[in-house]
Amino acid sequence: MSTQNQVERWGIFELALPGYSDGNPFTDYEIKGTFQNEHEKVDCDGFYDGEGVYKIRFMPSFVGEYSYRISGTFSEQTFTGVFTVTEPRKGNHGPVHTVHTYHFAYADGTPYYSIGTTCYVWHLQTDEQIQNTLETLDKSAFNKIRFCIFPKHYAYNIGEPRSYPYEGSPMDSGVLTPENFEQYFFKKEGNHFDFTRFRPEYFRHIEDCILELQKSGIEADLIIMHPYDRWGFSGMTKEQDDLYVKYITARFSAFRNVWWSLANEYDLLPDKQEADWERLAEILMEKDPYGHLRSIHNCKDFYDHRRPWITHCSIQRIDLYRTAENVNEWREKYGKPVVLDEIAYEGNLKYGWGNITGEEMLRRFWECACRGGYPGHSETFLPGEDGMIWWSHGGELHGESHERFQLLLDIMKQTPGIGLKPYEKCEWDEVCAVPEETLPDAVPEYCLYYSSFMQPSSHDFYFDDRTDFSVRVIDTWNMTIEDRGVYRGKFTINLPSRQYMAIQITKCGMKEE
Amino acid sequence: MSTQNQVERWGIFELALPGYSDGNPFTDYEIKGTFQNEHEKVDCDGFYDGEGVYKIRFMPSFVGEYSYRISGTFSEQTFTGVFTVTEPRKGNHGPVHTVHTYHFAYADGTPYYSIGTTCYVWHLQTDEQIQNTLETLDKSAFNKIRFCIFPKHYAYNIGEPRSYPYEGSPMDSGVLTPENFEQYFFKKEGNHFDFTRFRPEYFRHIEDCILELQKSGIEADLIIMHPYDRWGFSGMTKEQDDLYVKYITARFSAFRNVWWSLANEYDLLPDKQEADWERLAEILMEKDPYGHLRSIHNCKDFYDHRRPWITHCSIQRIDLYRTAENVNEWREKYGKPVVLDEIAYEGNLKYGWGNITGEEMLRRFWECACRGGYPGHSETFLPGEDGMIWWSHGGELHGESHERFQLLLDIMKQTPGIGLKPYEKCEWDEVCAVPEETLPDAVPEYCLYYSSFMQPSSHDFYFDDRTDFSVRVIDTWNMTIEDRGVYRGKFTINLPSRQYMAIQITKCGMKEE
Repeated sequence: MSTQNQVERWGIFELALPGYSDGNPFTDYEIKGTFQNEHEKVDCDGFYDGEGVYKIRFMPSFVGEYSYRISGTFSEQTFTGVFTVTEPRKGNHGPVHTVHTYHFAYADGTPYYSIGTTCYVWHLQTDEQIQNTLETLDKSAFNKIRFCIFPKHYAYNIGEPRSYPYEGSPMDSGVLTPENFEQYFFKKEGNHFDFTRFRPEYFRHIEDCILELQKSGIEADLIIMHPYDRWGFSGMTKEQDDLYVKYITARFSAFRNVWWSLANEYDLLPDKQEADWERLAEILMEKDPYGHLRSIHNCKDFYDHRRPWITHCSIQRIDLYRTAENVNEWREKYGKPVVLDEIAYEGNLKYGWGNITGEEMLRRFWECACRGGYPGHSETFLPGEDGMIWWSHGGELHGESHERFQLLLDIMKQTPGIGLKPYEKCEWDEVCAVPEETLPDAVPEYCLYYSSFMQPSSHDFYFDDRTDFSVRVIDTWNMTIEDRGVYRGKFTINLPSRQYMAIQITKCGMKEE
Repeated sequence: MSTQNQVERWGIFELALPGYSDGNPFTDYEIKGTFQNEHEKVDCDGFYDGEGVYKIRFMPSFVGEYSYRISGTFSEQTFTGVFTVTEPRKGNHGPVHTVHTYHFAYADGTPYYSIGTTCYVWHLQTDEQIQNTLETLDKSAFNKIRFCIFPKHYAYNIGEPRSYPYEGSPMDSGVLTPENFEQYFFKKEGNHFDFTRFRPEYFRHIEDCILELQKSGIEADLIIMHPYDRWGFSGMTKEQDDLYVKYITARFSAFRNVWWSLANEYDLLPDKQEADWERLAEILMEKDPYGHLRSIHNCKDFYDHRRPWITHCSIQRIDLYRTAENVNEWREKYGKPVVLDEIAYEGNLKYGWGNITGEEMLRRFWECACRGGYPGHSETFLPGEDGMIWWSHGGELHGESHERFQLLLDIMKQTPGIGLKPYEKCEWDEVCAVPEETLPDAVPEYCLYYSSFMQPSSHDFYFDDRTDFSVRVIDTWNMTIEDRGVYRGKFTINLPSRQYMAIQITKCGMKEE
């Protein structure tokens, strides 16, 4: 038995305990724990980690003295003890939750402005490639990454993963070619996996990756199920699915930077019905004691994001032309934060979802942000000799949009209050946001106007006759910010007749009466 | 009395006859005529042209000998005679009509592929400016221009027109400024016009302009009513409106290149109801014996283009993002040719409708054409010292899209058959057209694929295993066409990972069985 005596707030307190290893420990034995202090009491499950070792993890939400009590069929013994939770270290703000209906904040109250990317199986590449990805991410503005727990079978990604989540052996992948891989979707024959026996090292590796992301301040948006499968992982029985979701919640829930994406393109999994998603969501709700963010990502049809278990919309665009532009509508419809996890990818693949320009990607980011939503990126440039595409393998970025997201993030962080909403007084042909807290008909404290693909030579503003506003003109593509001074009453801001300009307007004073 | 003895087919046979000039000849007297030969008999009205002269015009649709008989209260006399209709001169294809539900052709069967522009009051500028406009148009690919019969009061166009359509005097326009002009919309006070007494020279000047356009092969899409008014022309009584529509149909119907746009932004005229438009449309139907094309153009809400009197949809975009992309939907909904008369204008005005880039304008043109619709352009760059904007005054073009329309028109003219329709086998994320006559599930004779704002590195095609297709890759922006040879079966066309590319695929042979 290994224990810690001390853990930071929102860190992981972990116990590794000896137990039975006969039969199938993944299904035959259970381990449960209770962790408590004066402010909270958390019941949670542990998991079998192989080699006769059971682990149980806890993420404390308060500073101070905690006690624990661990028991279960895995051992005759009941394990108890105490530990101390210290103040969080710098950069540890706790898990992200939803706030003010449409927005996010860390547990310590720091607003979280999501700027996401997707690298579906970056963690299943070589160590060198994984290191590459982490370095790229660390230098980037990204603070969320979506990736799959299971391996991926898809265009540009037909090789074997570095290892498998289950004991057993896969079908012969030597038969796969870029031309025929589609025939192997959902093919179960030839695979010999035991869906009741996990390979703990597969999951330990994912935990290492989650922790590395945590160090760079990046949320790990874990995709639990997906349809890019030739191993049978997307077509397990209900009992096997349940076992899997319980296993990963037991392993991953104590990581503060975990988000749950119940599925990617849920509507493409042939063996799953709505009832399956709802059942798995219930398990997620029950087994994750911290209530990490939960959503489910569509292909053609949105899941009903009004369902109570869904904390935020995780959206793939369903229109080729109106993408980020629909954020207003989705906010109203679902009453939750709108995260655009796929608005097409910057690249040049033959697929329509993977060949927009850097300009268009950046434009969709700003459209999204200036409508009170949160944008997501990925990159799909035709791979070079190494066969790597950011969207699937991580590695290096080749596009033009990603370098420009830091400016957007900086601007988002300047929002007074928790986040932006569409300004009610916007004309139909302009994009304009104000702080979420702005009252109807009130003069806004702050206003972010974005001219998108349009190239106006000026913009007229009028809020009232009393308030002074300082004005900055932002070229979102060329990444310049120009101070334009202070204005009151009716004023006109000249613009350079270029696309992708923003105007940031901040209340800075009030005329004396 | 002046007469001709001879006129070409679809030319104008005109008679100028003396008549009463006492009282108000515009309302007190009428002149009616019958023109006939073995194939047709046309009854129509003439009009008072001032100075005691009445005119009546006829556009013959057949070659051969015609007779006429003119009578009415304008004179005690009945005028009869004969004339000869000769073969049309080169370039005279007759008036344009709709064909095959969604398309247009001239009366001689030549397909007409509309490439429009808008210069609302180009004809009310100085002679020099008018000459400029005509020269610009003659060099351009435009074969249709929208303009207003009445003068225009609007941003960048607050001056007086060169003359007025009615006897009387306007309000003092010295009070107008770029800041206050909006207050004068629909202002009737201060104007002293007699809406029962036309100024014939105003209309003669428009006729001269229509004829000049005709020489350049350009259709004159005449806007009968519009809301950009400070003179009261948009707020006349029903009787005055009827008188006006009868007057212009009598004057203009015999011009083969005339189209009728009953109103521009019909929904912005405060004094007009649907019943008014329907009544005026009935007059148009009754008084134009040639059935020139008729439509009505919206601002916010489409008119119901299913109405029988409407020959084609004249559409202003009602979504900022989905514009030309809606052509498929509108074709289905209205079952008529879809003409996009306003899909925003290339320019840099502060108004959202007037500040898209040349690239975006060209993209909307190709999107429209590759969905079986017909696009329209205008230009709204902030005026220089001369105060001129193409969209209002004509003159010269400054944008980047217009030079690229000839290539599109050339490609449209290569369509086998009468026009294009959306290809049923298009994926949702591509744009692809085939000839309108293509049968469901048939291998198309021809296919025009457009990659829009996407930048694919290739596109896969498969039609069948037997047909040979010659392939050309078109860079619509850089205006290059590359022959790529002949393909059969499954084939991949490599593309340069740039936006705005098209692929033209033409059946060129068949494998022998």
